[in-house]
Amino acid sequence: MSEVKVVIWNEYLHEVENPGVAELYPDGIHGALKQAFEERGGFAVRTATLREPDHGLSPELLADSDVLLWWGHKAHHEVADATAAMVHEAVLSGMGLVVLHSGHMSKPFKRTLGTHGTLRWREADEKERLWNLRPDHPILADVPDQITLEQEEMYGERFDVPEPDELLMLSWFQGGEVFRSLCTWRRGLGRVVYFR
Amino acid sequence: MSEVKVVIWNEYLHEVENPGVAELYPDGIHGALKQAFEERGGFAVRTATLREPDHGLSPELLADSDVLLWWGHKAHHEVADATAAMVHEAVLSGMGLVVLHSGHMSKPFKRTLGTHGTLRWREADEKERLWNLRPDHPILADVPDQITLEQEEMYGERFDVPEPDELLMLSWFQGGEVFRSLCTWRRGLGRVVYFR
Amino acid sequence: MSEVKVVIWNEYLHEVENPGVAELYPDGIHGALKQAFEERGGFAVRTATLREPDHGLSPELLADSDVLLWWGHKAHHEVADATAAMVHEAVLSGMGLVVLHSGHMSKPFKRTLGTHGTLRWREADEKERLWNLRPDHPILADVPDQITLEQEEMYGERFDVPEPDELLMLSWFQGGEVFRSLCTWRRGLGRVVYFR
Amino acid sequence: MSEVKVVIWNEYLHEVENPGVAELYPDGIHGALKQAFEERGGFAVRTATLREPDHGLSPELLADSDVLLWWGHKAHHEVADATAAMVHEAVLSGMGLVVLHSGHMSKPFKRTLGTHGTLRWREADEKERLWNLRPDHPILADVPDQITLEQEEMYGERFDVPEPDELLMLSWFQGGEVFRSLCTWRRGLGRVVYFR
Repeated sequence: MSEVKVVIWNEYLHEVENPGVAELYPDGIHGALKQAFEERGGFAVRTATLREPDHGLSPELLADSDVLLWWGHKAHHEVADATAAMVHEAVLSGMGLVVLHSGHMSKPFKRTLGTHGTLRWREADEKERLWNLRPDHPILADVPDQITLEQEEMYGERFDVPEPDELLMLSWFQGGEVFRSLCTWRRGLGRVVYFR
Repeated sequence: MSEVKVVIWNEYLHEVENPGVAELYPDGIHGALKQAFEERGGFAVRTATLREPDHGLSPELLADSDVLLWWGHKAHHEVADATAAMVHEAVLSGMGLVVLHSGHMSKPFKRTLGTHGTLRWREADEKERLWNLRPDHPILADVPDQITLEQEEMYGERFDVPEPDELLMLSWFQGGEVFRSLCTWRRGLGRVVYFR
Repeated sequence: MSEVKVVIWNEYLHEVENPGVAELYPDGIHGALKQAFEERGGFAVRTATLREPDHGLSPELLADSDVLLWWGHKAHHEVADATAAMVHEAVLSGMGLVVLHSGHMSKPFKRTLGTHGTLRWREADEKERLWNLRPDHPILADVPDQITLEQEEMYGERFDVPEPDELLMLSWFQGGEVFRSLCTWRRGLGRVVYFR
Repeated sequence: MSEVKVVIWNEYLHEVENPGVAELYPDGIHGALKQAFEERGGFAVRTATLREPDHGLSPELLADSDVLLWWGHKAHHEVADATAAMVHEAVLSGMGLVVLHSGHMSKPFKRTLGTHGTLRWREADEKERLWNLRPDHPILADVPDQITLEQEEMYGERFDVPEPDELLMLSWFQGGEVFRSLCTWRRGLGRVVYFR
């Protein structure tokens, strides 16, 4: 099998504006993820960020990509509508779109699914457990029954998304909430994955 | 049970521009549908059309409606994006949206589902059979196993929509095509129904 | 609308064998549920229990019923295969089957869904929260965003059932687990509801 | 990737009892399929038939198989209930079960899905067209938009099966019917595929 072509899109503001984050991710979250993919092997990885011209994306780049990872948090409104439309079109044409964590409010995610993407939120620093509902699924190969994270903020239901085609993981939060943490939806010839 | 509040939206161009259609529908398709609902009883029906100011729609009207029927054909592009957004929001807030026939390419439908809504099409005047897959479903109460229509144009697969939450009817066409003719999708607190 | 015809099936062993339970439910759980339905009105309720001849069920009774509630716990194996087959057939012919709590291992449930119905279990006396994912759904009309129960045993994932047609509630447990607590599946012309 | 372990199960009665069929399939349909898999490469194929002891199947064989193909037609009732239960268990444990054509009434199929598997049937010798609804799906890689078969018997809706997890192909029949010809359902850790 040939290499999987991945584009990692990162807002890349926290790393620039916050020295503590910059120390953790000297090359940005996109740089850290790129390194992780390359160490694993089998991937051809490119990156793009918000403040580059056209946010670093073009129809040609997307047409030449199998998967686009999207991470944004505090500047969703700065993403051009034309860029969200371009990502949406690329999904319908067959690209995979993997939306991470606070990307649930990003323009490409909302536009592709047709829902608000809103959820219950609580600033927290508490225990989260992710439960594996589909040990048979390729995405969850070798993932144990549950994963515990010690210090997490909270995302809870009702998560305003269409019924997932596949519901793969559920999160439990110490403070009393639950969340559909890993879901997939097909749209056109492509697929959307959300992972908290 | 109190009355169901219905708004019937019609493009209302064919009836105005084409004398043959005007003769068939002197009050427009919306007028004919309104009369049918009122004869059946239990409905409070209002109508709206493309060329009225704001296409005859307002957030207040939609907030006061249980269901919006949408029929458009040749002037989808004339519908304002703001109107499509308003209908989309109303669905997410709980309204039902019933999209009829060539409304599969309308802005509210495409925007709410997040897909192109394209399909295979052939100008035709041929036999169509609709098969009932869900005789248990309230929408299909008292509908027989199949319905035959003698003179129809053809809509065929692949219909570019998300996997329906409910697939209720399939069409057969004399010329060799099939089509998912009656489907439902939930979005937010509302629901979308497509009926060819 | 005419009355909804309900049959409540109860194992009725705990109430007979355990004086504490007998005190709580002098007429059995089926008797308490029957009374609750009748107080609400609009229901014609009959009951049936394990140790009656044919477990109190017949094809005629089921053919004349809209819904069968099923509660069993420690004697699933005593239910005749022929009875489970009869209930299964009644569902395929259009009856609703509502399986409650420990009924997840009952023969009619396993047979109708085609899965083991197994889950993670812990004897407990801890807090449970049920989250409402579908405030738009008729079953959850007037149910708040969440319900808290102070003293519950624990049912957790992976719950071995087919992907639900509708996932309506998720449970959170103090000890760290989550559970799909309220689900529906259509089978034939009928429907199965599981409620923990 | 290592070889995919396949078991092909065939009723193997038509080939024995009908000289015309015997001529077409001198080694049985299972033999012809085995040869096709082996010519393609990447598969380790074993076969089993109805009249062998235990129908040629054992828990050990199934535990050592990735996929079981099932074809039966006129002797579904001869398959032991214990064998159907064994196949069902193997699916829940992770095996794939591919049910072909008239296998829709076979015991393993009905038992695993929990429905009758009935359909509309007409002895025919007419044109069938299969429409590809999911060109993005691995099963349909390189399959064109439609496939035409000149002489087929007819299978039509309503096909009494649970809502498929994936609806991949629809059939059109010259005589006026439609059919969900290629569907998948997950059950436990395994998957069921039906292909007409």
